[in-house]
Amino acid sequence: MKISILGGTGNLGKGLAIRLDLAGFDVFVGSRKEEKAKKLAEEYNEVAEKFGGGGIIGVENEKAAKISDVSIITIPWEHAFETAGKLKNALSEKIVVSPLVPMRFENGFARYVEIDGSSAAEKLASILSESFVVSAFNNIPAKRFANLEEKFSWDVLVCSDDAKAKKVVMDVVNKIEGLRALDFGELKNSRIVERLTPMLINLARINNLKPLGLRFD
Amino acid sequence: MKISILGGTGNLGKGLAIRLDLAGFDVFVGSRKEEKAKKLAEEYNEVAEKFGGGGIIGVENEKAAKISDVSIITIPWEHAFETAGKLKNALSEKIVVSPLVPMRFENGFARYVEIDGSSAAEKLASILSESFVVSAFNNIPAKRFANLEEKFSWDVLVCSDDAKAKKVVMDVVNKIEGLRALDFGELKNSRIVERLTPMLINLARINNLKPLGLRFD
Ligand SMILES: C[C@@H](OP(=O)(O)OC[C@@H](O)[C@@H](O)[C@@H](O)Cn1c2nc(=O)[nH]c(=O)c-2cc2ccc(O)cc21)C(=O)N[C@@H](CCC(=O)N[C@@H](CCC(=O)O)C(=O)O)C(=O)O
Ligand SMILES: C[C@@H](OP(=O)(O)OC[C@@H](O)[C@@H](O)[C@@H](O)Cn1c2nc(=O)[nH]c(=O)c-2cc2ccc(O)cc21)C(=O)N[C@@H](CCC(=O)N[C@@H](CCC(=O)O)C(=O)O)C(=O)O
Ligand SMILES: NC(=O)c1ccc[n+]([C@@H]2O[C@H](COP(=O)([O-])OP(=O)(O)OC[C@H]3O[C@@H](n4cnc5c(N)ncnc54)[C@H](OP(=O)(O)O)[C@@H]3O)[C@@H](O)[C@H]2O)c1
Ligand SMILES: NC(=O)c1ccc[n+]([C@@H]2O[C@H](COP(=O)([O-])OP(=O)(O)OC[C@H]3O[C@@H](n4cnc5c(N)ncnc54)[C@H](OP(=O)(O)O)[C@@H]3O)[C@@H](O)[C@H]2O)c1
Repeated sequence: MKISILGGTGNLGKGLAIRLDLAGFDVFVGSRKEEKAKKLAEEYNEVAEKFGGGGIIGVENEKAAKISDVSIITIPWEHAFETAGKLKNALSEKIVVSPLVPMRFENGFARYVEIDGSSAAEKLASILSESFVVSAFNNIPAKRFANLEEKFSWDVLVCSDDAKAKKVVMDVVNKIEGLRALDFGELKNSRIVERLTPMLINLARINNLKPLGLRFD
Repeated sequence: MKISILGGTGNLGKGLAIRLDLAGFDVFVGSRKEEKAKKLAEEYNEVAEKFGGGGIIGVENEKAAKISDVSIITIPWEHAFETAGKLKNALSEKIVVSPLVPMRFENGFARYVEIDGSSAAEKLASILSESFVVSAFNNIPAKRFANLEEKFSWDVLVCSDDAKAKKVVMDVVNKIEGLRALDFGELKNSRIVERLTPMLINLARINNLKPLGLRFD
């Protein structure tokens, strides 16, 4: 399966690209600039090759979106909606994954930013009305995830209004070592999932812990 | 330290009474009826003795509240506020722990019940204005917790506006095997913590899992 990571040149994109590659998927790293995408893909492949992977390809975002069956948008929420609007046709009839968390830092504490009282995933779905939007990966600490030495057992809550798309994404999540997908119902429940992230960040800060993931057990 | 569990004759009270006893605290199980309290204390001691504990005492709620340094109110939220009102004097100047989760089941799914847009813990604090209210234990699945064969590693989020009381309760939590207390700031944050419980229950239902606790890792 071809999976593209749009804005895959940043924190969360790195871990996703490398770990999805190691899980056996065909991974395309997207960027606004093809050159940057190729450079980062090369860096990621250097890491992936140490673990028996490699073959990540860097391309411009729109091309990545067109090639792929599933696109994960790892762009800061302030810019993700505008990018999605531009890629609406390229993403039509495809599965789009939202790890977006609208958030602001105030005095070092994270605070959720309300978007029309709903969620970033729902806003994305309203823009990408011809795509199947699924929320996932919102509660993953990106830097630990990108570190291949890191051992973790994290749960990924997956929400969507399209049962088939949700199943596809849950299967993708479950192929990544250390992650377990949990079905959390309709896309509207992403409101709850996105709001967990500021809690995780603030808990880590108050208790002086490393960036935290979640496990239900 | 003397810890009373008001309404300690139910689901959550059982696990707390036995495990706090095993952790070395002087435990008083409270009930509306002294006779019922004594009967349940006897049952709990039978379990505790198998693990080297025992000595749990059953008394009427008001007496339990007066004797103790810390009182945990394990009464269904629909009745807990009225009970708290009656015990206001007995609980004055003492630490009171709220595990309360205002919740309703609709078509098998749990739904948080908004109380004046705040939390059950804050409502309790407004009634018990002379006590030090701390929220904790809201995300613990009671039946698994009451089963002494059960192995778990759960986090307990602790919120309070009184730093000293919060520290006391965190130390109590950390004495229970398998639990880790995490400081989650002011009492207002109990709004977030209480709302996690319907999520846990619904996740377990959707994914066909046993009742779930939480671990941040
Ligand atoms: C605390 C952190 O500082 P920072 O780089 O400014 O990062 C702060 C946060 O932005 C960063 O934690 C983000 O991942 C926060 N974050 C999100 N931040 C966002 O901006 N958007 C998100 O959607 C988001 C999601 C998210 C989900 C879970 C989670 O735990 C964190 C999340 C830090 O120190 N990072 C270290 C690495 C962290 C670390 O492991 N440090 C110690 C670890 C201590 C230990 O291991 O005990 C170490 O290096 O040994 C670093 O930058 O190298
Ligand atoms: C699902 C459950 O049914 P039930 O007894 O109606 O209980 C449903 C819920 O009320 C019960 O789970 C409550 O604890 C829910 N609950 C709360 N319920 C509340 O009413 N108020 C609360 O504040 C609350 C908090 C809470 C926090 C975490 C959490 O996970 C659950 C919480 C069930 O089957 N229970 C079994 C035990 C559960 C169990 O382990 N079953 C299987 C386990 C399956 C397995 O181990 O894989 C088994 O017995 O082997 C039983 O009644 O004996
Ligand atoms: N960081 C985390 O721990 C974490 C965890 C879970 C979820 N998330 C979510 O994942 C998303 C990405 O987070 P991140 O930390 O990975 O972000 P990031 O590293 O700051 O940025 C990712 C990429 O976004 C692209 N980008 C930046 N500005 C853009 C713009 N104006 N238009 C289009 N693309 C732009 C850049 O790619 P190019 O320059 O190559 O185009 C950049 O490399 C966010 O929505 C966040 O909420 C983050
Ligand atoms: N169940 C869970 O998994 C769980 C987990 C975390 C938190 N909690 C919270 O803990 C609290 C207790 O839950 P639970 O499941 O343990 O409750 P429960 O077993 O249904 O009831 C506990 C006790 O409350 C007392 N009680 C009942 N009605 C009362 C009334 N009208 N006035 C005074 N006392 C009354 C009863 O004691 P007497 O008859 O002996 O007086 C009863 O044994 C709830 O607020 C819940 O939200 C529960």
